[in-house]
Amino acid sequence: MSGLTHFDGKGDAHMVDVSEKAVTTRVAIAAGYVKMSRETLETIIEGRAKKGDVLGVARLAGIMGAKKTSELIPLCHPLPITKVAVELSPDSDLPGIMIEATVKTTGQTGVEMEALTAVTTAALTLYDMVKAVDKSMVISDVRLILKEGGKSGRYEAK
Amino acid sequence: MSGLTHFDGKGDAHMVDVSEKAVTTRVAIAAGYVKMSRETLETIIEGRAKKGDVLGVARLAGIMGAKKTSELIPLCHPLPITKVAVELSPDSDLPGIMIEATVKTTGQTGVEMEALTAVTTAALTLYDMVKAVDKSMVISDVRLILKEGGKSGRYEAK
Amino acid sequence: MSGLTHFDGKGDAHMVDVSEKAVTTRVAIAAGYVKMSRETLETIIEGRAKKGDVLGVARLAGIMGAKKTSELIPLCHPLPITKVAVELSPDSDLPGIMIEATVKTTGQTGVEMEALTAVTTAALTLYDMVKAVDKSMVISDVRLILKEGGKSGRYEAK
Amino acid sequence: MSGLTHFDGKGDAHMVDVSEKAVTTRVAIAAGYVKMSRETLETIIEGRAKKGDVLGVARLAGIMGAKKTSELIPLCHPLPITKVAVELSPDSDLPGIMIEATVKTTGQTGVEMEALTAVTTAALTLYDMVKAVDKSMVISDVRLILKEGGKSGRYEAK
Amino acid sequence: MSGLTHFDGKGDAHMVDVSEKAVTTRVAIAAGYVKMSRETLETIIEGRAKKGDVLGVARLAGIMGAKKTSELIPLCHPLPITKVAVELSPDSDLPGIMIEATVKTTGQTGVEMEALTAVTTAALTLYDMVKAVDKSMVISDVRLILKEGGKSGRYEAK
Amino acid sequence: MSGLTHFDGKGDAHMVDVSEKAVTTRVAIAAGYVKMSRETLETIIEGRAKKGDVLGVARLAGIMGAKKTSELIPLCHPLPITKVAVELSPDSDLPGIMIEATVKTTGQTGVEMEALTAVTTAALTLYDMVKAVDKSMVISDVRLILKEGGKSGRYEAK
Repeated sequence: MSGLTHFDGKGDAHMVDVSEKAVTTRVAIAAGYVKMSRETLETIIEGRAKKGDVLGVARLAGIMGAKKTSELIPLCHPLPITKVAVELSPDSDLPGIMIEATVKTTGQTGVEMEALTAVTTAALTLYDMVKAVDKSMVISDVRLILKEGGKSGRYEAK
Repeated sequence: MSGLTHFDGKGDAHMVDVSEKAVTTRVAIAAGYVKMSRETLETIIEGRAKKGDVLGVARLAGIMGAKKTSELIPLCHPLPITKVAVELSPDSDLPGIMIEATVKTTGQTGVEMEALTAVTTAALTLYDMVKAVDKSMVISDVRLILKEGGKSGRYEAK
Repeated sequence: MSGLTHFDGKGDAHMVDVSEKAVTTRVAIAAGYVKMSRETLETIIEGRAKKGDVLGVARLAGIMGAKKTSELIPLCHPLPITKVAVELSPDSDLPGIMIEATVKTTGQTGVEMEALTAVTTAALTLYDMVKAVDKSMVISDVRLILKEGGKSGRYEAK
Repeated sequence: MSGLTHFDGKGDAHMVDVSEKAVTTRVAIAAGYVKMSRETLETIIEGRAKKGDVLGVARLAGIMGAKKTSELIPLCHPLPITKVAVELSPDSDLPGIMIEATVKTTGQTGVEMEALTAVTTAALTLYDMVKAVDKSMVISDVRLILKEGGKSGRYEAK
Repeated sequence: MSGLTHFDGKGDAHMVDVSEKAVTTRVAIAAGYVKMSRETLETIIEGRAKKGDVLGVARLAGIMGAKKTSELIPLCHPLPITKVAVELSPDSDLPGIMIEATVKTTGQTGVEMEALTAVTTAALTLYDMVKAVDKSMVISDVRLILKEGGKSGRYEAK
Repeated sequence: MSGLTHFDGKGDAHMVDVSEKAVTTRVAIAAGYVKMSRETLETIIEGRAKKGDVLGVARLAGIMGAKKTSELIPLCHPLPITKVAVELSPDSDLPGIMIEATVKTTGQTGVEMEALTAVTTAALTLYDMVKAVDKSMVISDVRLILKEGGKSGRYEAK
């Protein structure tokens, strides 16, 4: 297959051999958002001001989700993650919550999947906590923003 | 907080008590898609025709992801899932892959989160397998389509 | 062995057969505390007032820890937990943080271990978050407070 | 917050960036005990002499618990553990069982949490196996004894 | 496909819908063995007589492995296991160790996979503990011995 | 005990200290097979030709199983696996499916257990997917074929 490295010559899935790749510092940033009604967003923001920290719980779930990446994604290599940060920001234009995750490792392969998994896990957790008042929220635009380190070099989303 | 059941009277997060809820059959369907360039979609479709089954791997990951939901989402109840099906369909208009997951349980709470987690895990896996040829794919429009069973009744996305 | 039900007649460890036990509502409450210097306690309390919610993170870890009980304790049965609540209260007399966890299930065996695991996981997480300023904190007095439901009946700590 | 490194400038929890820290050999020793009645302790000791090895099961659970640390403690880094030993010794003065865990790694951050988690998991398992005869056992005095390696240097409990 | 229920009409893998199946008591017994040289078997037996309980560790791993079945086998349903027992018996004719696992549940599907997983996990653990003295051990004859309960009825190996 | 390194001087199980061992590239190959009736083998082969890819699902389960090794085998060290490949080949003489797994790491200890776990997990998954038509399949001859790297050097099965 043209370039699909997760399959061998016979087309069988395998976990790619990275043992010859250099151990370097690698970073990835992913983003996405949860869109919701203006009322739902206000409920979340008010909750934070007072108590009932939806964003705090979602952030923690995102961080822990990054650590579960190689369990969730079948052909992903286990990696010694050295940093995870997940930022959730209310955006009243959307309206909704913007999510951005940054993951670092010192390893033989990149952490794009870890950053993307942090974003989707934070988004799912946010949905879970708010679904009693709004089931129509939508998770969208989950994508890689930046990737640095490793042989394939730097990638930046346009 | 107005209706955010995952917080108690003091605003502290807790896992809601469902022990008095009836054990009934519950179903949830969630959907979403991975958008990509026309070339990338063709690579996936060709791979399937020949060998190198990206969609088969993503489907399996989605099914297994549904089983991990209560580990990923902090306040989610563990549930005896009785069915998971994940469908991935190429859509040349998008262009990309449409994903739909159906989950059933016979339990005391719903499986919305399990269906949504199946969709995002399948989408992430698809991204992982194809990212060597295209890093600009976007996961979007992940949402609940249908929910049946339980006290809060039927929900259908508009 | 006199009463050690986790061993069979030959003294070999096994997971006790509970298939004949009734499915009933069962509750367990466990408690414990993390003792620390007065300065450390003040750092935690101030953090909460402002931002940096040590207790919120520890509470969530306790709830998620309860769900991991049957993975951690070799002979523990997996159980469909129906409620988990973890309360962390600063106590300036100790000085330190009191922890209390309540767990419920509708199942064939009790949730004492789930409640105790919630307490120790919350305590360990609290230690982790504060250890940069104080490594001499001590986790103590982790014990079962109350157990209700099931054939062996009610237990209340003296 | 004064010194609470697990929060960023805004007070949001994150997994601290350790990618610039040196890869060195790091050791941690933690300890604690399970206090019980003299009769319960005798039941355990007799069981070992004959058959029904409570301490053997608890030791194994402690070792496996250390490997689960980064799953249990939200902001803990996953680490390639290179050694775990858990010692359980009956103490008739207590009366009860003393627990001591030693963990090593060659990594970018310490193994204090792994050693503490080994102790609490062994203690919880011991409780589980003996609770049919004694529910009033108490887990106490779980603390860090020694920590070596890494920039913050050596720590020894007084 | 003729009878392969894990695939739907289109040939796509899915987790079979068991939500209409009756909740009944189900039992499965699986067996297998680890074959080794006479010297290796003697090392294990001597170890048990003295100290260093290879069989005790393998038994516990088998019990815990049964609880991990639905994580390991992609299309397996999560089940509330109600009993696990694993028996390891030295057999000097083989020479080697015979392994037999019995698993029970009260659920909507059987526990054949749980019993088989208990056997292979115990066998792998035994291999791990003894491989420093003998790498040529072979795990063989892992099979289902008995299955009772559920619509498909009783199965007994010939 | 003569050579059983997983026990200390007192005969207590421990996770061996590998912190002084060199970080080198290590490879292990393990193999085994699932024996079945000629009819069952034909069902699998036909399924592949058409749709319903039993071998593809088993292969993926084997790869993911390798990543779970240190969770399943109590005294196994967690390792940064750098490659996993699992090959399943129909063998009409057996009749059945031959399984071979290759695992690589760059670490301080070998990957024999990872390769063996990949084989048994693939075999169990194969059994699970086909058991509706044939419960008498047998998993046999699971053994280490090759091991390279590390102080104990090369091992090749005779």
